Amino acid sequence: MLYHVRMDVRVPHDVEAATFDRLKAAEKARAEELQRSGTWRHLWRIAGEYANVSIFDVADHDELHAILSGLPLFPFMQIAVTPLARHPSAIA
Amino acid sequence: MLYHVRMDVRVPHDVEAATFDRLKAAEKARAEELQRSGTWRHLWRIAGEYANVSIFDVADHDELHAILSGLPLFPFMQIAVTPLARHPSAIA
Amino acid sequence: MLYHVRMDVRVPHDVEAATFDRLKAAEKARAEELQRSGTWRHLWRIAGEYANVSIFDVADHDELHAILSGLPLFPFMQIAVTPLARHPSAIA
Amino acid sequence: MLYHVRMDVRVPHDVEAATFDRLKAAEKARAEELQRSGTWRHLWRIAGEYANVSIFDVADHDELHAILSGLPLFPFMQIAVTPLARHPSAIA
Amino acid sequence: MLYHVRMDVRVPHDVEAATFDRLKAAEKARAEELQRSGTWRHLWRIAGEYANVSIFDVADHDELHAILSGLPLFPFMQIAVTPLARHPSAIA
Amino acid sequence: MLYHVRMDVRVPHDVEAATFDRLKAAEKARAEELQRSGTWRHLWRIAGEYANVSIFDVADHDELHAILSGLPLFPFMQIAVTPLARHPSAIA
Amino acid sequence: MLYHVRMDVRVPHDVEAATFDRLKAAEKARAEELQRSGTWRHLWRIAGEYANVSIFDVADHDELHAILSGLPLFPFMQIAVTPLARHPSAIA
Amino acid sequence: MLYHVRMDVRVPHDVEAATFDRLKAAEKARAEELQRSGTWRHLWRIAGEYANVSIFDVADHDELHAILSGLPLFPFMQIAVTPLARHPSAIA
Amino acid sequence: MLYHVRMDVRVPHDVEAATFDRLKAAEKARAEELQRSGTWRHLWRIAGEYANVSIFDVADHDELHAILSGLPLFPFMQIAVTPLARHPSAIA
Amino acid sequence: MLYHVRMDVRVPHDVEAATFDRLKAAEKARAEELQRSGTWRHLWRIAGEYANVSIFDVADHDELHAILSGLPLFPFMQIAVTPLARHPSAIA
Repeated sequence: MLYHVRMDVRVPHDVEAATFDRLKAAEKARAEELQRSGTWRHLWRIAGEYANVSIFDVADHDELHAILSGLPLFPFMQIAVTPLARHPSAIA
Repeated sequence: MLYHVRMDVRVPHDVEAATFDRLKAAEKARAEELQRSGTWRHLWRIAGEYANVSIFDVADHDELHAILSGLPLFPFMQIAVTPLARHPSAIA
Repeated sequence: MLYHVRMDVRVPHDVEAATFDRLKAAEKARAEELQRSGTWRHLWRIAGEYANVSIFDVADHDELHAILSGLPLFPFMQIAVTPLARHPSAIA
Repeated sequence: MLYHVRMDVRVPHDVEAATFDRLKAAEKARAEELQRSGTWRHLWRIAGEYANVSIFDVADHDELHAILSGLPLFPFMQIAVTPLARHPSAIA
Repeated sequence: MLYHVRMDVRVPHDVEAATFDRLKAAEKARAEELQRSGTWRHLWRIAGEYANVSIFDVADHDELHAILSGLPLFPFMQIAVTPLARHPSAIA
Repeated sequence: MLYHVRMDVRVPHDVEAATFDRLKAAEKARAEELQRSGTWRHLWRIAGEYANVSIFDVADHDELHAILSGLPLFPFMQIAVTPLARHPSAIA
Repeated sequence: MLYHVRMDVRVPHDVEAATFDRLKAAEKARAEELQRSGTWRHLWRIAGEYANVSIFDVADHDELHAILSGLPLFPFMQIAVTPLARHPSAIA
Repeated sequence: MLYHVRMDVRVPHDVEAATFDRLKAAEKARAEELQRSGTWRHLWRIAGEYANVSIFDVADHDELHAILSGLPLFPFMQIAVTPLARHPSAIA
Repeated sequence: MLYHVRMDVRVPHDVEAATFDRLKAAEKARAEELQRSGTWRHLWRIAGEYANVSIFDVADHDELHAILSGLPLFPFMQIAVTPLARHPSAIA
Repeated sequence: MLYHVRMDVRVPHDVEAATFDRLKAAEKARAEELQRSGTWRHLWRIAGEYANVSIFDVADHDELHAILSGLPLFPFMQIAVTPLARHPSAIA
């Protein structure tokens, strides 16, 4: 099942740079891993913002939540989840 | 270039049913045509709402606007466009 | 899977009373049918508003959308869908 | 009487980890206790967010406020309360 | 139990004047009746707006909803209900 | 003259507990004093939130502002003031 | 006492032109009368919008409401009232 | 002086097509005239929306309001005006 | 030319009291100076809030920005500027 | 292609003055460089706010994002990007 997820990352300026770099590296590795597994289907950067739009393909809400809440940057994210159904005019 | 487009359709109840059916049919045909051409890359229904999230792949803003403003249901749509850049963690 | 759905009903005053009554009766029958099937798990009235909070238990987004968009009052509804995951502190 | 309660938890990053863990453990214990007593009827995680939707069954507003304001994580919560009445189409 | 209720009245200009006058008269009569019974405890006009803030004293959510949804102007109202608990610093 | 005042209290977590307790005690004493004088006519807790709805009866805006801006917790409050006029259907 | 009042005028396109012209003329006459009496102290047009910011000097909320709700265009206005107190740095 | 103006055009569906076409033609002619005079410095279409962002260069607020409120489509526009000052880093 | 300016002052609690007092004193002195020069025409306190509504009379946007951005409390202010044109019904 | 970009700068008060000055100087230098290259076509200060409206002329979303996310003050900015298409009434 497909979920549209918007993630806005807001990291306070007084978070130590080393901590932030470590989190970003872990986030990148995890994102790549999930993309390779087909779970994280699409990952796009919203131009001009520290935010992304993603499409996840997972079995259910629980799996989605486990993935999102397990992301290294989750504590600094504002997330909006929108369930996507099949569109009657979609040809794919 | 990729554009994220959310379309919310709001058709007043006093629009004649025949007119509305004609517009919906024309919208469906146009959507299918644009998907076959690769322009309308993704078309998902937002579950529970008369709205969709779409990803368009077009050359520039002018082409996007021509397509969207030319959609049969455009006069009854609220549209939000978000330009999508390449995400540094995207593997595709 | 569980979905939290808020439905706000807004019927313009110039909708014919007979049409509105017919829609309300059909809506009530459909709601009762879906509750008996276990799909529409909870249906609560938001005190003071022509709105409800409901919990649906369906297989996936497509099934949810088919149900909601098929409701007789759907054209007059503003709907917000929120996917519900299992809470780590839930004992049920 | 039933109350729909949405709780969004926002814990600043500079809250000491030990304090936060202690609060989370106390919150979990309290939530389980209230569920066993039937007061906290439903507790669902909003997929993708550090937030929950809950249904409380209490005698009145005072009891609800005492419970919510007594939750260990209350100081870090944004709470919205919606009173739920019986829906005319509810069969339960 | 006390409920804080804000009612914003919005009557489209094409509602027949006679209908509107009849509704207003019925609304006034009903409001006076409920005040005499002690149910509608306070009724204040928000200065400059066709809106009021009211305090209702009723047994539960169902009674509140029955009263509000039964008001003659209910179809033209936007209503927000806020449950009021006892304040720890209240001396009354 | 009556003023409807909503006060939302937001105290950052890094305010010293002793300071916060002192402010709360002073706030409580001041609220009780103003209630005894009839100025602070009603003080209700919004169930589930660190917020109140109050009705003040004062001579004019200046007196209201002096009272509110003089409250010990004022620096941590978000306040909304709504002037209340006499409602044509009010019987009191 | 001074009140800051913002008035946004929204007249549906299907209001008869003659009716609208009559209302506008009556509104203008009333505004001029209230300015001459010193009640309507300031009347400014918000550049680019069919809206104004006004400062009223009246005895109390009731008088303000009587004036505003009596304006010919009141049924087509969205009004926001803000009570103004004396500023500690004001020299006038 | 420069003003940033956003215009969102919302024309109800029951406005006669001929009237709407006449207004659009008049709007286009007026826009072209004002651009030639240098008053309407920039006119851009917001991609995907029946809206534009414009930069006006006029003497003062009164002249801006006269121009905007005189536009044929003004009754169907929602307009937001933002005064633009010289930026300290602007080289032009 | 007249500008309507709303200033909301938000000073974090961990700003040193001495710094804050110095800024407030400087702000008061500057406001009085600008009022004496006729630039700061009106300065009203929004009752109940650490905010003011002001009317400035300056030559252009640049002068307004220089004044506002030069205010001692500017770094702690949220400011909204609205250009005011002459109202057709204004008699002054 | 043209992009409308609004940048609101919010720098917490506890950012060291020296750091902030360094960032501002680097931001100014970069802005001037991009203006000279024709990329940053327009840069206007929003009167009264620490914010600007800019028009960028770049090849695509990726280039825009690289520029904006590379700005020295980017971590302290809230940015909104709006793609601009050619307006049918634009004469330039």
